Parts: sequence; C-alpha cells; structure tokens
Amino acid sequence: MSQTLPTFLDALASSAPAPGGGAAAALMGANGAALVSMVCNLTLGKPKYAAVEGDMRSLLAKSEALRLRLTKMMDDDQTVFNTLMSAYGLPKQSDEEKPRRKEAIQAALKSATEVPLACARACAEVVGMSREAAEKGNLQVISDAGVAVAAAEAGLKSAALNVWINVPSIDDKTFADAARNEIDALIDAGGEDSAAVYALVRSKL
Amino acid sequence: MSQTLPTFLDALASSAPAPGGGAAAALMGANGAALVSMVCNLTLGKPKYAAVEGDMRSLLAKSEALRLRLTKMMDDDQTVFNTLMSAYGLPKQSDEEKPRRKEAIQAALKSATEVPLACARACAEVVGMSREAAEKGNLQVISDAGVAVAAAEAGLKSAALNVWINVPSIDDKTFADAARNEIDALIDAGGEDSAAVYALVRSKL
Repeated sequence: MSQTLPTFLDALASSAPAPGGGAAAALMGANGAALVSMVCNLTLGKPKYAAVEGDMRSLLAKSEALRLRLTKMMDDDQTVFNTLMSAYGLPKQSDEEKPRRKEAIQAALKSATEVPLACARACAEVVGMSREAAEKGNLQVISDAGVAVAAAEAGLKSAALNVWINVPSIDDKTFADAARNEIDALIDAGGEDSAAVYALVRSKL
Repeated sequence: MSQTLPTFLDALASSAPAPGGGAAAALMGANGAALVSMVCNLTLGKPKYAAVEGDMRSLLAKSEALRLRLTKMMDDDQTVFNTLMSAYGLPKQSDEEKPRRKEAIQAALKSATEVPLACARACAEVVGMSREAAEKGNLQVISDAGVAVAAAEAGLKSAALNVWINVPSIDDKTFADAARNEIDALIDAGGEDSAAVYALVRSKL
C-alpha cells in the first residue's frame, strides 16, 4: 500500500499474478467511495446546501469508513491469493498428505470467495451512497457523483468475476450456492441502481 | 504522480477540487490497460498459447503505450482544471479585461473538453483490447480481461460526464457539436462492446 500509483500499475501489468483483478476491483471501489466523500466535502458548509448538512455529514462518515475498508481489501486480495497458491503447492504424495492438501485448498478457496464477495458488498454500498450524493450534493461537483457510481459499479462487476471463478471448485455446496446466489443478486440490483444514478447525474449536468 | 495510492485517495476524497473525477477516469482506464498487459504477460511464453504469441506481443505493445498515455492524462486533467480556474479568476472590470477574460475561459473550456475526450477515446481502445485479451488470452487469467473491460468502461463513462458538463458553455458551436457527437458515439459503442466482452469472459469462467 505504500507504493506509488505508477509502481502499482507496473505491478498490475506485470507477469506477477498478484496484484491482479481483485486488487483493481477494490481500488475502483475505493475510488468511488473517495469521490462520494469529495462531493460531501464540497457540499458541507455551503449556505445553499444548509438543509442537507446533516445528511452530508453522515454520508461522509459512511463513505470514509468504506474507503478505508476497500483500500484494505487490496491487501486482503493478495493475502488470499498467496494462501491459495501455497495450498496448491503442498506435497501430495502420501495418504496423509493428499487429504491435508485438499483441505487446505478448500479452505483457501472459501477465503478467495469471501474476500471478493465482501468487496462486491462494499461496492454495492458505494453505489447506494453515490445515489444520495447525486440527489443532495453540490450541483457544481455532481459529475463526481457520476464518476463515483461508475467506479463502484466496475468494482462490483470485477469482484463478481472473482467469486464466479472460485465457486465451481468449492466442495461445500451450501457455501458455494449461498455465495453464488448472493453475488448474482448483488450484480442484478447493482446494475440497475448504477444505471439509474448515472442517468440522474446526466440529467443534472 | 509520485504519490502513494492512499495519498492519492486522500486527495481525491478531500475538498480540494482536483484531483477529481477526471483523474479517477484516467486512472480506471490505466488500470484496464494494465490488466490487458497482465493477461498478455501471462499468456506469452506458454507452449499451449504458442499460436497467439505474435498477437499477444503486439497487443501488449499497444496496451502498454495506452497505459502510459492514460497515466499521463491524470496530470493533464489537473492542468486543464487549474487553467480553467485561473481564467475564471481574471479581472473583469474594464472593457479590455472583459473580452480578454471571456476568451481565456473559452480556450480553457475547449481544453477541459479535449482532455476527457482523449481519455474517453483511449478507454474505448482499452475496451477493444480487452476483447482480444478475452478471446485469445490464457484461460487461467481470463477474469482479469473481464476486470480490464469493466475498468475501461467505467473510465469511458466517467470521462463522458466531463465532456457533457463543459460543452454547453462553449460558444464555438462547431467545436461543441463535434465533441458532443463524438462522445455520444463513443458511449453508445463502448457500452455495447463492454457488455459483450464481459459476457464472453463470464462464459469462459
């Protein structure tokens, strides 16, 4: 996390398998949350928007908390990826080793599903927050609420791919089905909500 | 550009009007280009993908060039914003000052339209590249081609907002109409293309 933007992009582009799409998904969500915060910060204290001062203050607290969580998820993604790679690398010769390796892989696959699922949930929350920013925020920076929703939607769609890619390999069908159902619902609702917020912003330009 | 990711996100979230949505748009486009490069880098040299070695090498050269251009656009956005603010701040008392200020504002508005238009064009190119990465790239990292297209689409939609917000204030109607027509065409084609690439990736997971 202490790397500069160009260094992060170099690492993303490289043949190193992490950081990859999971980190990019969390970064886009964090960008969306940051832009909701920006709209709040540029609305607070303006006499014209005194009526929404309380709403903007509470929205800002939520968007800043989400920004921190999403920023941290960039690291979580790398951690679960490394854990999964280590599990695949365990010895698989003896009768004791085989089930131990299989168990480690299954546990790592669940973590590698839970992290993007948490990212998708957070991005869906950012979509909802961008709606409030677009509805009540300072008109002079309303386009930033539109960029926030585009970023959050992209983070959600990206995280969903990382859920879908892992669930087919998970033996615990109850867990796998629950994850698949939740991500499908988040994607369906998130797609509609994002389109509505983007259209609202466009109508206000 | 030498700032760390958390520092950039802090600045984005703050009440400083720049960096804002324009820089976030270029960053998402650069993320998309970086992920196309990642798919190329993890396809090149794999015997199973020897048949697409040439295609991947040429795609990588294009995606890396676009990544550099989009990263640079993050600074361009800040530059045109500062120029526009300076123009609005020019004195407007005397009969000489008024037209001089108006001319400076009009020139700055054109630049503030051209920069996001260039960003939108570059993001549309990344959408096209993500299609090739999804069609020919290593299946093990195909989800990263899906994240690439989601990021590029978000960059395109975000840049479009910054074009639409400026064109109504531009007096040169030929310039304004050309910009509006181009961004509308990019958004229409980009939306369809992105949905097709995302569906292709999903079908391959």
